[in-house]
Amino acid sequence: MDAPTSVVIFGASGDLTSRKLVPAIFSLWEAGALPGEWEAVGFGRRPLSDDEFRRSVRPEAVPEGWAEFAAHLHYRHGGYDDPASYEALAEQLDAFDASHGAEPGAGNRLYYLATPPDVFPVVVDRLEEAGLHRGTIGWRRVIVEKPFGRDLESARALNARILQTFREDQVFRIDHYLGKETVQNILAFRLGNGIFEPLWNRNYIDYVQILVAESLGVEGRGGYYDHAGALRDMVQNHLLQLLALVAMEPPGTFTADAVRNEKVKVLQCIRPIAPGEVDRYVVRGQYEGYRDEPGIAPDSTTETYVAMQLAIDTWRWSGVPFFLRTGKALPERRTEICIVFRQPPLTLFAKATPAEQPEGPPGQVEPTVLTLRIQPDEGISLRLGLKPPGAGMRLAPVQLGFSYRSRFGRDAPDAYERLLLDALSGDATLFIRGDEAEAAWTAVTPILEAWASSDRAPEPYPEGSWGPAAADALVKEEHCEWRPGGDAA
Amino acid sequence: MDAPTSVVIFGASGDLTSRKLVPAIFSLWEAGALPGEWEAVGFGRRPLSDDEFRRSVRPEAVPEGWAEFAAHLHYRHGGYDDPASYEALAEQLDAFDASHGAEPGAGNRLYYLATPPDVFPVVVDRLEEAGLHRGTIGWRRVIVEKPFGRDLESARALNARILQTFREDQVFRIDHYLGKETVQNILAFRLGNGIFEPLWNRNYIDYVQILVAESLGVEGRGGYYDHAGALRDMVQNHLLQLLALVAMEPPGTFTADAVRNEKVKVLQCIRPIAPGEVDRYVVRGQYEGYRDEPGIAPDSTTETYVAMQLAIDTWRWSGVPFFLRTGKALPERRTEICIVFRQPPLTLFAKATPAEQPEGPPGQVEPTVLTLRIQPDEGISLRLGLKPPGAGMRLAPVQLGFSYRSRFGRDAPDAYERLLLDALSGDATLFIRGDEAEAAWTAVTPILEAWASSDRAPEPYPEGSWGPAAADALVKEEHCEWRPGGDAA
Repeated sequence: MDAPTSVVIFGASGDLTSRKLVPAIFSLWEAGALPGEWEAVGFGRRPLSDDEFRRSVRPEAVPEGWAEFAAHLHYRHGGYDDPASYEALAEQLDAFDASHGAEPGAGNRLYYLATPPDVFPVVVDRLEEAGLHRGTIGWRRVIVEKPFGRDLESARALNARILQTFREDQVFRIDHYLGKETVQNILAFRLGNGIFEPLWNRNYIDYVQILVAESLGVEGRGGYYDHAGALRDMVQNHLLQLLALVAMEPPGTFTADAVRNEKVKVLQCIRPIAPGEVDRYVVRGQYEGYRDEPGIAPDSTTETYVAMQLAIDTWRWSGVPFFLRTGKALPERRTEICIVFRQPPLTLFAKATPAEQPEGPPGQVEPTVLTLRIQPDEGISLRLGLKPPGAGMRLAPVQLGFSYRSRFGRDAPDAYERLLLDALSGDATLFIRGDEAEAAWTAVTPILEAWASSDRAPEPYPEGSWGPAAADALVKEEHCEWRPGGDAA
Repeated sequence: MDAPTSVVIFGASGDLTSRKLVPAIFSLWEAGALPGEWEAVGFGRRPLSDDEFRRSVRPEAVPEGWAEFAAHLHYRHGGYDDPASYEALAEQLDAFDASHGAEPGAGNRLYYLATPPDVFPVVVDRLEEAGLHRGTIGWRRVIVEKPFGRDLESARALNARILQTFREDQVFRIDHYLGKETVQNILAFRLGNGIFEPLWNRNYIDYVQILVAESLGVEGRGGYYDHAGALRDMVQNHLLQLLALVAMEPPGTFTADAVRNEKVKVLQCIRPIAPGEVDRYVVRGQYEGYRDEPGIAPDSTTETYVAMQLAIDTWRWSGVPFFLRTGKALPERRTEICIVFRQPPLTLFAKATPAEQPEGPPGQVEPTVLTLRIQPDEGISLRLGLKPPGAGMRLAPVQLGFSYRSRFGRDAPDAYERLLLDALSGDATLFIRGDEAEAAWTAVTPILEAWASSDRAPEPYPEGSWGPAAADALVKEEHCEWRPGGDAA
């Protein structure tokens, strides 16, 4: 029989709890995936009763079974820095264990740090002080929400603090992108099929693009965002995680450490951008109107857009540019990875004219492009050149496509559902290891520093555009082009 | 200005003329693809007036413009072996040239041999006798319908006879499969995209299957078919042409001779099947009820089904079995080529159970399969293993698909349209060269001979089945399996 299991959410009155965590726990409960005896305890500064908490996280369309589920939810009002609150929490958790016939402390405890990031070390301090980090029979694990630090130094300090109290295998640094099915499928796609790995290198790949486009602006998160910016908020975590999965060497097994060893390895091989080269390889944009948003400094130089070119100094990727691009207020919400393959060595075929008539001068054909679409409508497409009907030997682009929804009859499950389940079962494969977080910060910190010491303001771009013109110059320099959704047809 | 052009169809009262040739000429006329001054002359043994001939080839649903088009159609009643008929034909063609202001004989002449095959040499004899093979300014070309011989010896004799009168570049041996868009697309697919050619060899391909399945029986063609059989009727031409396009080396250019040099080369590298090995590598089937069909000998041993394994002794294909399979009275009409790729070298993933739940024992994953679908619904699909939703790292098969019809907004044009246009413009790329026909006969003639001297009857199989059980044993022996339509989903 499973030990009783408590999930404690610090920062439970925040948006994430009602929007993501409770729905994910509900789905797991509904699917029978939770341990036999479990509770979830919200811990927060707002004074709420259990019932008030349950109401605060209840979905608008109340699902069947909610009342039965909600009985597992509890609330603990307390100060993050207040030792007495943690002692009371400890008593409550022990009582839960005891009520299910286990010794006090014998139950499993998953601490979910969903507070503002400056509170993370405080919670860890108090957990240790109250002895909540120690288990007798049951395990103790901690999930740490993003952002994990705001530069290399702070990430190192946070790692050091957490690892003073917990072992690395107890720490689950979350990047919810890794919980997305299509992100996990990057590895399945590469390594579960015999035909891609032989092509997955500098001999066949011309360049790689990773796009995380948001159509919204800062939307009320101005206060947080203006101190973060796109490089911290998106590139250091989501985009570099996608890069790592695309670029890593195949692991020997699918254990958490084997996979993460390879990710760390490739992140460490990203060529550092020297301070003097930041303007050459990184475009920093800010959408027009950003400074008028609530919570934004009127002279803010925070970037809402980043386009950058990275080089990966490995045997596999030498000479292959990786273009990363993310921004707010872009024309659409879209996350995708495009692998653009080299042209065939001989141009035996010519490109069809737009009307697909086999006329017009012969020329270079369109490249073969593999697109891994992460959102929306998760799927995969392969753009090939094929011959349109009629005489001649011209090529026109054609999509071989697959949509997750149409194949599996439903949208991919929410990322948090998968990640919570993995943390409960102790599988850290889809979480960021400490050295991994630091390797990612190592790649972006020189850029942050160069910008901080620069007089140059971010390039403005109109809301609803694909970003500043400088981003186009960046790819053109390498004879490449951005592929914004053009391959999704 | 183009010279006046006459297309003379020998055997014009046959089925092919009304069913394929006239509709193809009509489409070309409608598209403005025919020369400025043209006529089509039907030559046949049935006494018909021009008007009767026009009526005999008029489609049931009379298309717009038919009357204007039909004015270009004429008929010449004559005996294939009768010199006077050819003299009259010569006068008629000269008169056509003259009526368009050209010297008699200065027009272009395309002779289409659509008679029974034993008549081909007779027509060539008479054409030469009447001087119709010689041009002054205009060209003379001859299209030869299938079958081109009935074994190596007869094909050699036919080649010798034709090439006594015409140069090889005047001879267009037809295999209408080569006019199909998807067949031409085999080369576009392989060579117009950088990613397939690196995989297109023994290192990555496990085996290749070529299927030409017909759902009908002999359907009134019994008299012809019982003297031919599936090996002559389908394998020597269609299946070996598909094999040649899949297996050939890339040509240096897309000229007729460069492409056909490579096709001949690979056909010549098919390992000959020794008489004693025919029963090991070739399965000969006959559907139950075949002997009761009209025109079939009651003790006929003609095969209506062939499954065979070929080896291609080239650096590229050594050790890769090519499985060919064709038959009548099979469950469906389907022509497709399946390229089955090798398993990844490490099985990091396990196969999902049928319900796609991530449970069940780990095992070998399904192979990656590329299917080039030639009929019906021409298209391409790539079957990959991907991770179904949920925990774990199991793989389930997924199709990346493309349908010609949905991409280009219409079905592929009829093969004869393309081939007639190519013959009119002198492009022989999609026609069989003399040495190519002989190379294909070289591959199948030992099998014909072994069967002729064998007491063993063809294996019976029920109508509507996928053929005799011996065919399954053939692939199992190589640890492969037939993929009958299972990859089309």
